[in-house]
Formats: sequence, structure tokens, C-alpha cells
Amino acid sequence: MNQKIDVAVVLGSDSDLPIAEKVKKILEDFNVPCAYTIRSAHRTPLDTKKKIEEFEERGCKIFIAIAGMAAHLAGIVASYTTMPVIGVPCSNAKSNTAINGLDALLSMVQMPEGVPVATVAIDNGANAALLAIQMLAISDIDLTEKLIVYKMGLKEKTLKKANKLTEAGWPN
Amino acid sequence: MNQKIDVAVVLGSDSDLPIAEKVKKILEDFNVPCAYTIRSAHRTPLDTKKKIEEFEERGCKIFIAIAGMAAHLAGIVASYTTMPVIGVPCSNAKSNTAINGLDALLSMVQMPEGVPVATVAIDNGANAALLAIQMLAISDIDLTEKLIVYKMGLKEKTLKKANKLTEAGWPN
Amino acid sequence: MNQKIDVAVVLGSDSDLPIAEKVKKILEDFNVPCAYTIRSAHRTPLDTKKKIEEFEERGCKIFIAIAGMAAHLAGIVASYTTMPVIGVPCSNAKSNTAINGLDALLSMVQMPEGVPVATVAIDNGANAALLAIQMLAISDIDLTEKLIVYKMGLKEKTLKKANKLTEAGWPN
Amino acid sequence: MNQKIDVAVVLGSDSDLPIAEKVKKILEDFNVPCAYTIRSAHRTPLDTKKKIEEFEERGCKIFIAIAGMAAHLAGIVASYTTMPVIGVPCSNAKSNTAINGLDALLSMVQMPEGVPVATVAIDNGANAALLAIQMLAISDIDLTEKLIVYKMGLKEKTLKKANKLTEAGWPN
Amino acid sequence: MNQKIDVAVVLGSDSDLPIAEKVKKILEDFNVPCAYTIRSAHRTPLDTKKKIEEFEERGCKIFIAIAGMAAHLAGIVASYTTMPVIGVPCSNAKSNTAINGLDALLSMVQMPEGVPVATVAIDNGANAALLAIQMLAISDIDLTEKLIVYKMGLKEKTLKKANKLTEAGWPN
Amino acid sequence: MNQKIDVAVVLGSDSDLPIAEKVKKILEDFNVPCAYTIRSAHRTPLDTKKKIEEFEERGCKIFIAIAGMAAHLAGIVASYTTMPVIGVPCSNAKSNTAINGLDALLSMVQMPEGVPVATVAIDNGANAALLAIQMLAISDIDLTEKLIVYKMGLKEKTLKKANKLTEAGWPN
Amino acid sequence: MNQKIDVAVVLGSDSDLPIAEKVKKILEDFNVPCAYTIRSAHRTPLDTKKKIEEFEERGCKIFIAIAGMAAHLAGIVASYTTMPVIGVPCSNAKSNTAINGLDALLSMVQMPEGVPVATVAIDNGANAALLAIQMLAISDIDLTEKLIVYKMGLKEKTLKKANKLTEAGWPN
Amino acid sequence: MNQKIDVAVVLGSDSDLPIAEKVKKILEDFNVPCAYTIRSAHRTPLDTKKKIEEFEERGCKIFIAIAGMAAHLAGIVASYTTMPVIGVPCSNAKSNTAINGLDALLSMVQMPEGVPVATVAIDNGANAALLAIQMLAISDIDLTEKLIVYKMGLKEKTLKKANKLTEAGWPN
Repeated sequence: MNQKIDVAVVLGSDSDLPIAEKVKKILEDFNVPCAYTIRSAHRTPLDTKKKIEEFEERGCKIFIAIAGMAAHLAGIVASYTTMPVIGVPCSNAKSNTAINGLDALLSMVQMPEGVPVATVAIDNGANAALLAIQMLAISDIDLTEKLIVYKMGLKEKTLKKANKLTEAGWPN
Repeated sequence: MNQKIDVAVVLGSDSDLPIAEKVKKILEDFNVPCAYTIRSAHRTPLDTKKKIEEFEERGCKIFIAIAGMAAHLAGIVASYTTMPVIGVPCSNAKSNTAINGLDALLSMVQMPEGVPVATVAIDNGANAALLAIQMLAISDIDLTEKLIVYKMGLKEKTLKKANKLTEAGWPN
Repeated sequence: MNQKIDVAVVLGSDSDLPIAEKVKKILEDFNVPCAYTIRSAHRTPLDTKKKIEEFEERGCKIFIAIAGMAAHLAGIVASYTTMPVIGVPCSNAKSNTAINGLDALLSMVQMPEGVPVATVAIDNGANAALLAIQMLAISDIDLTEKLIVYKMGLKEKTLKKANKLTEAGWPN
Repeated sequence: MNQKIDVAVVLGSDSDLPIAEKVKKILEDFNVPCAYTIRSAHRTPLDTKKKIEEFEERGCKIFIAIAGMAAHLAGIVASYTTMPVIGVPCSNAKSNTAINGLDALLSMVQMPEGVPVATVAIDNGANAALLAIQMLAISDIDLTEKLIVYKMGLKEKTLKKANKLTEAGWPN
Repeated sequence: MNQKIDVAVVLGSDSDLPIAEKVKKILEDFNVPCAYTIRSAHRTPLDTKKKIEEFEERGCKIFIAIAGMAAHLAGIVASYTTMPVIGVPCSNAKSNTAINGLDALLSMVQMPEGVPVATVAIDNGANAALLAIQMLAISDIDLTEKLIVYKMGLKEKTLKKANKLTEAGWPN
Repeated sequence: MNQKIDVAVVLGSDSDLPIAEKVKKILEDFNVPCAYTIRSAHRTPLDTKKKIEEFEERGCKIFIAIAGMAAHLAGIVASYTTMPVIGVPCSNAKSNTAINGLDALLSMVQMPEGVPVATVAIDNGANAALLAIQMLAISDIDLTEKLIVYKMGLKEKTLKKANKLTEAGWPN
Repeated sequence: MNQKIDVAVVLGSDSDLPIAEKVKKILEDFNVPCAYTIRSAHRTPLDTKKKIEEFEERGCKIFIAIAGMAAHLAGIVASYTTMPVIGVPCSNAKSNTAINGLDALLSMVQMPEGVPVATVAIDNGANAALLAIQMLAISDIDLTEKLIVYKMGLKEKTLKKANKLTEAGWPN
Repeated sequence: MNQKIDVAVVLGSDSDLPIAEKVKKILEDFNVPCAYTIRSAHRTPLDTKKKIEEFEERGCKIFIAIAGMAAHLAGIVASYTTMPVIGVPCSNAKSNTAINGLDALLSMVQMPEGVPVATVAIDNGANAALLAIQMLAISDIDLTEKLIVYKMGLKEKTLKKANKLTEAGWPN
């Protein structure tokens, strides 16, 4: 628990674990030292603050907050730190209401002047991790190189899919 | 500042003053001791907490939070108290975006299990005040009687409008 | 049927039972005397009124209305009483339309000046019950203490989940 | 007040008068005996019921309800009568929120099985009147003929506009 | 095919059959002579017109149009007749898009001045049938009496559900 | 009226003229022979059909339909022709409802399989004209060249704006 | 890969294959020479451009772009060509968020002045293909004739469904 | 033009200037070397790419893209760089459609896996600048200190507003 970290990931609830898995996958691929915890803006307001301070003491440079519904978590983290806070708005797999995920998106992105939250697509944990890595890469040439390789990988995957289409008999 | 209060009203910003005026009008009409302040969930997180504690020490029984955009204020107040928290989601008079006021409504009403916010209509400060008075009236027979008189007044106002319509020559 | 009650819960239809179960669970946990019934704003307008009066005679202090679609029930209850009315807008588990639950939310929360409905999150019966208990706790110190214990329980549950995350091998 | 009427028009508030004017214009053009009043689903629930009964005694065959926000009025009228109820959802000229008029539309149209409200376009008082006339015309050949003339007038007006376009120099 | 009918029901596609079943159930219960067909505003524009004329010749007094997506069918029927046209906007059971059913609702209800469509709730075939019966009942005292009995049945069903709740052990 | 045309532009109403002006501006710039008229899907269904046939006889190759609200016009034109139909959904400058322009967009774009409408952005008459020109350019090399010049003009205008920014003292 | 083509279809990802199948079915039925590939606006920006140029060299006259979420693909293709670009916004079968498919629709249709995208209904690959064929038919009388036959087929299919309804015992 | 910059700000059009002013105000306050230009994703696709490369050569570490409607600009910038891209979705002051600003928000935030855009609130240029500064501050202790001072300023401004409320006579 005393280890240095670059990125701290805070989940609003264990129901956000599938999204956190996507964050973890990318952060591990890029070898970024990080920590994960669960804190709730509404159920553990003081412990959220304490945990943020603990993460800051361990050298944390960026926060990722994952939450659904009235997703205040990212905003609350941002209210306590001057570091960049990335927010992942979550939908609810069991819900089919007309505001599913939209509530979280608007609760995260519509922050007032002075306290930004860098919001990514609904449920898109991977992009939150990549955004954090892009921020770290500003002062880390190794990460920049890894990002370039990753970007080339994205391209190749897409081109491979195009080839597969042709192999499957689609006119090209 | 040391006076006893029953209701504490917290504005997220001075841009919410027109809505707060409507709260004040009703609370004064019902003679409810109350206090008003401005605190921001994101700009003054610690001072918000301190102010809530001060209000509680002064006997405050109900909180009203007024806020727009990613309106976390009501949820944050609710995270610090076990008292009822009433939320008034605000629109922005100068904005005409497709999410104007909807952001605040969803950010307030979609609270997770365990931490409710009693949400009223967008910009409806009067109803927030009335809801607070209804709560106080549970143990205050005088307020109940005033509410009955107020309700009769609503009825009479509507019937008077109907008469005016007839007087204006509309067939009835 | 003659017993004293503090909270009366009115369902718009038996399809709202899953949401009412969540209300019941919390009200029982807090030992709040209450009654449940089904009445429809549109199918039993007079019987709704009669039932509200009966509940009032039994000492009822707060109403909870649970309804979906054009959810008028909470507003109708509020039109007949000066007591606080809490509304739970319901979605339809079998529907996937673009207005599922949004219709009920707007029909409940957008009440005109003078007749508030304290609206909670879509399908969130638990929060309706907690809000009712918070209102009762204004004049009931025992309930306040129970709410404080409940709030501590929420915190502990979240922290336990955080521990479980660590135990499951997530870096922390 | 004792005169026979075919259509009764109920406004939720005097703010709905501009929409009622459009209803009146059409009903007068078709010489339909009618009456107008203001009643609120939430502020005058009992007087609404009484007025509906009075209108029924005067031979009223169709109700038109005009209301905004959580527009329960049409549904409440429909709960008390077996006659057709036409609803006009209203927007608020002074509001620019993301739910302006949508709240009224959903509150009116999404009625549960058994209690329909014939909903027309937001703010479209003229169409409510025309729909009422179409219903009366089912058993009134004179009205049918007037409707046919009206429909021809609509056509001619459109074709005249087309001519004007040409006269204004647009290529045709 | 030469029989007299009071109500003509037009489906936009056979995918609307589940909604049409609900219409049929009610129209049969009330013994209303009616006919059903499938015509598409876009695939059979001329045949739609021809069928409407045929229905009119058979004495049809009211049209019910059932359609989804860009649901123009009701508007098209309304463009060819001066009789009341009732529209049932349909959702798509297999779709979960953010506009599912909302497209049909807006395409039906937002008719321009002069050509109303009486729109009921999404997928609510039963209410379309009831609305048609209410219109016929304007000049048919037997139908009015049946509607009163039906309305009493709705009430009783709701009260029975309330009793069942009590029998199931819910405090009342 | 007997002149050859390539593009026929149909307005649903004269309130759509500001959008039609944008269409006209572009079609004139590209020297495309065209005609403009006003026809309503709902007020002149038969005259709409007749006009479409007249336009087809004059060699028309593409239709542009401009309409608001329940904008059926484009779909109706498409139901009568096998030529490409371009739809411009219109908002209402005087309305501020929560569905302003969205009703027209969904009514135009959500066409069922078999009868497409090529929908452009809300109120974007210019793009409708350009899309028509792109279609004509498939078999007209002159138009292709003009489009290339137009596209270069777009680029230059943007770059000029960038220069102006620099000239105005913005760091670059 | 050197064959002449009339239509080039670009998928944003292989998850769009079910929509592309519908495009392919129609293009094959009409015997239109075409090619399919996968390119991403964001993952392969340069390869997208290169592929577009390759398609143009092979005589391609129309582009169809299929994409979901922030569906930039159609706009990007349109930025590189003066040919008509048809966009099919895709929903995500596994998602049930409140913006599912709406994100793609708005990202495609709301193009700025100068660079249109001809947008069809969400997930409606068939209509994209038909729209492309309609464009080709402007200068190809054979395709026009096939379209007329296709349109007659649509009509017949609908009328057959109507007959089936009657055969199934529905009154007609 | 050869000066070193940390942040490059790209506007989609000069109509976005009011938002860019807010970016500029903050970047100047924090003394961040930056450059501003106008490039369009759709009108200058190649020049956009060239400009991004030029900015990268001048040491640029972060991009801010400001755009409205189908706001592809941020995504396009992100497709060409591995640096963090911040997106500001813009509304249109002259439009009051039901998708005003929502189109830009969804077009920016809903990026696919692999290519994130850090999206801030609609029209919130100030927060885009602050987010960029927070990113730079990861490796710049001076900026961190300035951010702490800025955050204290935010707090003080809010508390001053609270004092003003009291001075204006509001009970506190």
C-alpha cells in the first residue's frame, strides 16, 4: 500500500468492476504503476477525501473515477485535487430506462467553470486508461513510444479485419 | 448567525438567486426561521461540509440545495447529513442547449440507494420551500393549518381566474 | 385496518410490486408502522381520495406513491393532502422504448407551483422509504439515531467492497 | 351557464390562454356550442370533478384539456368521464429547458390501458378543436360538410402560397 | 368485404400485429363492427388511398392507424379523410436504440394545424380501441352504458389487486 | 412551367422559405435548372402527387423536400417516385420546445426498408442542394469540376479565417 | 482488386457486418459492381484516405459509410471526395444506453454547410444501398426499371400480408 | 510561427471564437505558451493534419479542439497524434433545436476504444484550458502551485458571494 503510483482508479461501486477491468488491462499493458479502490461520493464522503490524499502522498499524478447514475464521484475527486481527473460514466446493464448512462454522462461532463472533469465515452474504461497514459507521456518519452506502437497496432488490427472480409468472399 | 433555524438553503452560485427568491418568499410567508448561503460542491468542498455542520448545530432540520449543470450540491449535502435534503435543479436562462436543466435534474434525482435527494421541478424554488414546510408540519400543527389555508388560497386563485375568463367574454 | 400508521404507500398497479418490495424492506428495518395499497389515479379516482382520507385518519404523516408511464398518482395524492408526498417513478422491465421511465419521472417531478412531489430516482423504492424516515426523524430522535447507524453501515459496506477488491488481487 | 354545450374546454391555468384562443377560433368558425373554464388537476381536484359533472349535465359530449408541465389535467378529466378527452400539451414560452413541452406531452399521451387521452401536437389548440369537430361530425352531417369545405380551404391556401412563390420570381 | 363497419384499422406492417391484437380484443368486447388491413404509407400510397375510400363507402366512421419508425400512416390517412384518425405509435421489440418508439410518437403526434391525429400511448392498442368506442358512444347510448360498465370493471380490478396485496400479507 | 429541370424543390409550407433560400443560392451558383413549389403531405396529398408527376415529366432527376414538425413530405414524395429524395428537416424559429426540429429529423430519417430519404442536417438547405449536385455530377463532369472548385473554396475560406485570427493578434 | 466498381462500402468496424450484409443483399439483387472494406476514421485516418483514392481510381461513383458511436467515418470520407456519401448510423446490439444509435445518427447527419452526408435510418443498410442505386439510376435507365419493379414488389408484399391477415380470420 | 508552444488550440470555425476567448483568458493567466488556429475536419482535412504536425514540431504537448454540430474535429486531431486531445463541444447561440449542443457533445465524447477525447462541458472553454494546465502541471511544479492558488481563488470568490448575500439582507 505504500508503493509509488502514477494513476489512482476510484470505483463508485463494485458494480463498476467490468469497466474497471478494461482500465486495468490497458494500464498493465503499458506497465503503469497504479492502485484501485472503491469509494462513494455519497456513502463515504470523508473516506473519499482521505483516500485521495493518501494516493497523492504516494505520488499519484492522475485520477480516474468510474461511476453511474448521478455520478458525482469524478467531480468530488476534482474538488479535492488540482490533478487531472478522468471520468468514465457508466450505464447499468440491468436497466433499460430512457436515461440509462445519460444521467452519468451529464453528471460528469457538465462541470462548472474552474473544476474540469475529462470525460470519456459511456462505459469506455479503456479510453480512460489511454487518456491517463497520454497525459503521463507528456513527460515520459518511453510511454510516448509505447503509444505510437499501440496506435500502429490499432491500425493493423483494422486492416487485418479488412483482409478477413475479403477472405470471407466479400467483393473488394 | 447564531440564531436557531429550521431550514438551511444552500445556493451553488449567485446565478441561482432568482430561484432562491422564490424559496424565500414562501418561507417568509410561513414564518419559518431559516438561513441562506452560497457554497459550491466543487469550489468549496470543505467549507460546504463546515457550513452544514454549523447549520445542524443551529437546529436546522431540513436542507434545500439549489444548483445547475452537474448539480452535485444536493447529493454532497446529503452525503454529510441524515436530515432530508431537497434539491432544486436549475436551468440557465442564457443557454439554449439540448440539455439545459436536464443535466441538473438527472444529477440531482438519480441518487444511489441509501442517499436520497427529494427533487422538485426544474427552477421551482417555491415547491422546495413548500415541501420543507410540509415536512416541518409533520410535528407542527400550526404549520399544517397554514398549509391548509395556503391550499385553499391556491384553489380560490384558480377559481378567480376562471371567473375572469367568463368576465372577459369567453362562453361558459 | 384500524392500526395507526406513519407512512402510507400507494402503488399505481401490481406491476409496481418489485419497487414496493424495496420500500417495505427499508420501512421494516426501521420499524416504521405503515400500510400498503393499490389505487390508480385514472381507474379509481374517487377510491384513491377515500383511501387517502382513511390513511390520514389513521395518523398517516407521509405518503409514498409508486407509478409508471403518465405517473399522475403522486400528483393526485398531493392534490388531496397537505402532507409530504414522495414519488417513485417506475420504468417498465418489458419495455425498451426511448421514453421508458422518463415519462414517469417528468410526470412526477414537474409539478406546478403550490403542489410539490418529492421525487426520487427511477425505480428507487429504497430511497423513497429512507426519505420518509428522514422526514419522520425530524421529530423522532430514535429514528435519527437509526439513520446514523444506517449511514455508517453504508460506509462500511463500501469500505468492505474496497477490501475485497484488494483481496482479489487488484493493486492498491 | 345553463346553456347546452357540445364541447367543454378546461384550461389548467390562465397561462394556457394563447392555446385556448386557437381552440376558440376554430370552434366558433364551426359554430359549435361550447364552454371554457379554468380548473387545475392539483389545485382544485374536487372542483374539477364538479365542473366536469356540470358540463356533462349540460349535454357536453367531448372534453378538451389544455395544460403544461406535469400535465395531469387531461388524465384526471378522463378518469371521471367516459367521454372522449382531447389533450393539448403546452410548452412554456418563457422557458428554454431541455424538457419544455416534452414533460406535458409524455404526461398526457402515456396514459395506462383503459383511460385514453387523445393527444395532439404541442401547443396545437386548433387541432384539438378540429378533432372534437371530427368526433361530433360522426353523427352530424352538417359538420362533416363544413369539414370538407375546411379541408378544401387548407388545400387552396397551400396552392395560393405556391402561386405566390412563383409570383415572387422563384423558378417553377 | 361488403359488410358495414364502424371502425377501420390499418396496420403499417405485419410486425404491428401484437398491437393490433389489443385493438381487436377491445373492439370485439364492445361488439363494434370493424375491419383490419395492412397498408403502408410508403410502399402502397395509392392502395392506402383506395382502401380508405372503400372503408368510407362501407360506412366507416373512425380510422385507427398503427405504425412504427417514421410513422406517417396515420397522417396520410388523415390527409384523405375528414373522419377522426387515431394513431398508435409502435416501438420495435428487437431494437434498443435511443429513439425506439419516440420516432413513431413524434411522427404521429406532431401534425400541422388543420390535420389532427388523435395519438395514444406507445404500443397502447387497447386505448386506441377505447378512444374509438368513446367517439362512437357520442351518438350511441348502448356503447356509453358499456363504457360505464367497463370503467367500473377497471375500478374493481384495481381494488381486487389491493385486496390480493393484503391477502399476501402486506400491512394495510 | 414547361421548362426542363434537374431538381425539384418542394416546401411543406411558406414558413420553410428561409431554408429554401439556402437551397436556391447553391443551385443557382452551380447553374442547375430547377423548380420550386409548395405542397403539403397532409393538406394537398393529391396535388403533391400530381406535382411530382409533372416534375418527372419535365425531366426532374432529384427531389428535395423541406418540412418541419411531423415532416412526412419527403417520405410521401419518396413513396411516389423511384428517384432520390433529399429531406431537409426544419426547426421552428419561434418554438423552444424540447422536440423542436427533432420531430422533423426523426420523421424524415427513420424511413422503413425500401423507401429511403437522404436526410441532411436540421435547417441545412445548402447541404441538400450540394447533395443533389453531387448526385447529378455522377454523370456530369462539368458539375464535378465545379464541385472540386467549390471544395477548394471551402478550404480557402477556412484558411482565410485562420489568417484573420492571427491578424487579430491571437498567438499562432 | 482492380475491377471497376460503382459503389464503395466502408465499414468502421467488423461489428458493423450485420448492417453491411443488408447493403450487400440489395446491391447484389440490383447487380451493382461494388467493393467492401473496413477502415476507421480514428484508427486508420491515412489508410482511409488512401482507400478512398483507390476506390475513386476504380471508377467508384458513390460511397456508403457504416459506423456507430461518434460515427465520423461518413464525414471523413465526405471530406476527401466530391462524390455523394451515404451514411448508415449504427446502434450497438449489446448496449442499452440512453444514447445508443442517437450518437451515431447525430454524428452523421449534423454535417456543417459544404460537406453533406446523405443519412438514412439507424441500422438501415438496405436503404443505403437503395439510395445509392437511385443515384446511379439517374443516368442508368436499366436501374430505373429495376427500381420500378422493386417498388412494385414492395407493394405486392404489403398487399400479400393484408391477404394473409384476412386468411387468418381477421375481419376485413 | 516558429515559437515553442505547449498547447495548440484548433477552432472548427470562427463562430467558435467566443468559446476560444475563454480558453485564451485562462492560458494567458497561467502564462502557457500556446497557438490558435482555425481548421475544419471536413473542409480542410489535409491542412488539419499538416497543422497538427507543425504544432507537434514546435513542441506542442496538448491539443484543444473546439467545434459544434457533428463535431469531428477533436476526433480527427486524436487520430493523428498520440498526445492528449481535449474537446469542447459547442452549442449554437442562434439555434433552439432539440439537439443544440447535444450533437457536438455526443460526436466528441463517444469515441471508440483506442482513440480517447477528453471532453469537457458544452461551451466550457475555461475548463478545457484548465484541464490542459493540469496535464502540464504533472511535470511542472510551478503550474501546480499556480493551480493551487487558482483553486483557492475559486473558493474565495464563492465565499465572497456568500458574504454579499448576507450583506444584501438575506438571513444567514
